[in-house]
Amino acid sequence: MSRTDWNRPAPGQYRLRPGFRRIAMTVAYDGRDFCGWQTQDGQRTVQETLEQCLKDLTGLTLNVVGSGRTDSKVHAMGQVCHFDLPCESAIPAEAFAKALIVPPDITIRSSWEADASFHSRFSAMAREYRYFIRDRRDFTCMERGLATAVKNLPDVKLMNSYAACLKGTHDFSAFAAAGDLSESKCRDIYESEVFSCDSPYGGPVQVFRICGNAFLYRQVRSMVGTMLCLARDNAPAEQFAAILESKDRSRALDTARPDGLYLWRVSFDPDEYGWFEEAPDGN
Amino acid sequence: MSRTDWNRPAPGQYRLRPGFRRIAMTVAYDGRDFCGWQTQDGQRTVQETLEQCLKDLTGLTLNVVGSGRTDSKVHAMGQVCHFDLPCESAIPAEAFAKALIVPPDITIRSSWEADASFHSRFSAMAREYRYFIRDRRDFTCMERGLATAVKNLPDVKLMNSYAACLKGTHDFSAFAAAGDLSESKCRDIYESEVFSCDSPYGGPVQVFRICGNAFLYRQVRSMVGTMLCLARDNAPAEQFAAILESKDRSRALDTARPDGLYLWRVSFDPDEYGWFEEAPDGN
Repeated sequence: MSRTDWNRPAPGQYRLRPGFRRIAMTVAYDGRDFCGWQTQDGQRTVQETLEQCLKDLTGLTLNVVGSGRTDSKVHAMGQVCHFDLPCESAIPAEAFAKALIVPPDITIRSSWEADASFHSRFSAMAREYRYFIRDRRDFTCMERGLATAVKNLPDVKLMNSYAACLKGTHDFSAFAAAGDLSESKCRDIYESEVFSCDSPYGGPVQVFRICGNAFLYRQVRSMVGTMLCLARDNAPAEQFAAILESKDRSRALDTARPDGLYLWRVSFDPDEYGWFEEAPDGN
Repeated sequence: MSRTDWNRPAPGQYRLRPGFRRIAMTVAYDGRDFCGWQTQDGQRTVQETLEQCLKDLTGLTLNVVGSGRTDSKVHAMGQVCHFDLPCESAIPAEAFAKALIVPPDITIRSSWEADASFHSRFSAMAREYRYFIRDRRDFTCMERGLATAVKNLPDVKLMNSYAACLKGTHDFSAFAAAGDLSESKCRDIYESEVFSCDSPYGGPVQVFRICGNAFLYRQVRSMVGTMLCLARDNAPAEQFAAILESKDRSRALDTARPDGLYLWRVSFDPDEYGWFEEAPDGN
């Protein structure tokens, strides 16, 4: 099995220290008014906001660790994070989801007592992202910042033919933003598809759904932007595959706006996906 | 034909004055940060905001007339409004939808040159409202203020049996809020149904859809609130019909929150709905 979690430290390094409990939470957030997940000086971020809410509740300065960083304006339906609480604090783990007073653009969906070996980032087996695309004619202020509007929705079959190229283990250098610092650009993609569903506001929402072990910095937005560009020209899937295989960043086309991107779900279940029996790249 | 537009003045009273053009617009707005449609001192309202945007564009103080007032926090997907512009102003009617700079919670969906006899309120033949209901477990900050969350979604068939009672001409006194000043509480309801559609955020959205010639103050919210209360007890449709027929305000149950309510569409087409050949109440 491959399960290539690049840059994952030895479990001893992130194991819970004695005298502490580890609490995990699933969090949704509307990214429009956040400068992303990670704490940055002078910016409103989800991590810093949650740490402040936890301080208000417990009186303690706690470090909240997320499964993945999301960029400015990117949303989450199922970000998972954890923090370590001294055992003296007897607050039941499940109470955090109810008792934590968060701003209206955050929802704590659940909270639970995690194992000592659990780590929201390093135990994560897969991350699912979704990207919402809407026809400009159906798009109003109700969805502003929650989807990307395009002049004409691309053909779902064509988009699916691009999405299919991403499955498997690939070197995603072509879709790595300049800021990506990871040594290896190889990632495992378990599922990749485009489907259409109805919007309660009228017209279809086209959804790109991708699950993989991990993603490079801005990889999903770069892939979506390139797919949308190619679809406008009705380009065949081979052209998308050629860009991916080139491993050449200059071959990628647009980077899609953060508006339509959601960190949808994080899976900690090693049996959930069809893991690769043999890592194709020898890892 | 009934077409009971209560309190409609003679057409001469709202006809366009010579030397003016009448411009109509279809407008969507996210009601969360508005104190409703109608201008009120010291409050942010849609009407006042549009008048200010028009002043910024034309330099003129214009009066914007809407098809219907929406309450604080209520949304619109298709509010229709008009304003009268001196003929000296040569801005093409269609340009307003593109040139008007509006805040991000308003979308001008279209604008057109209206007939001299057109009046967004008095020419309206029907108004459609929709009300969005979500299961609390599917509900996150992404939809906060855009739908009402309930503990368990009611049965669609049961909700539809209530909705069916509303069709036809009825005296809606039972669902008129204290603030309703209209002389007659009779209104014609052309369509009334509940359906379920998928939300791109997961789970179903239950939608109550109602079209009628006009509505009393808070009538839709009072009807929805009562329907939701009855559905919790699995009450038969006869019970809802009895409340309606009682014409007794004290028989209505809850008033649903404004969050889930949308002024969905305004119809100016006299042939669109199955108008009543004979007004059942003799009007």
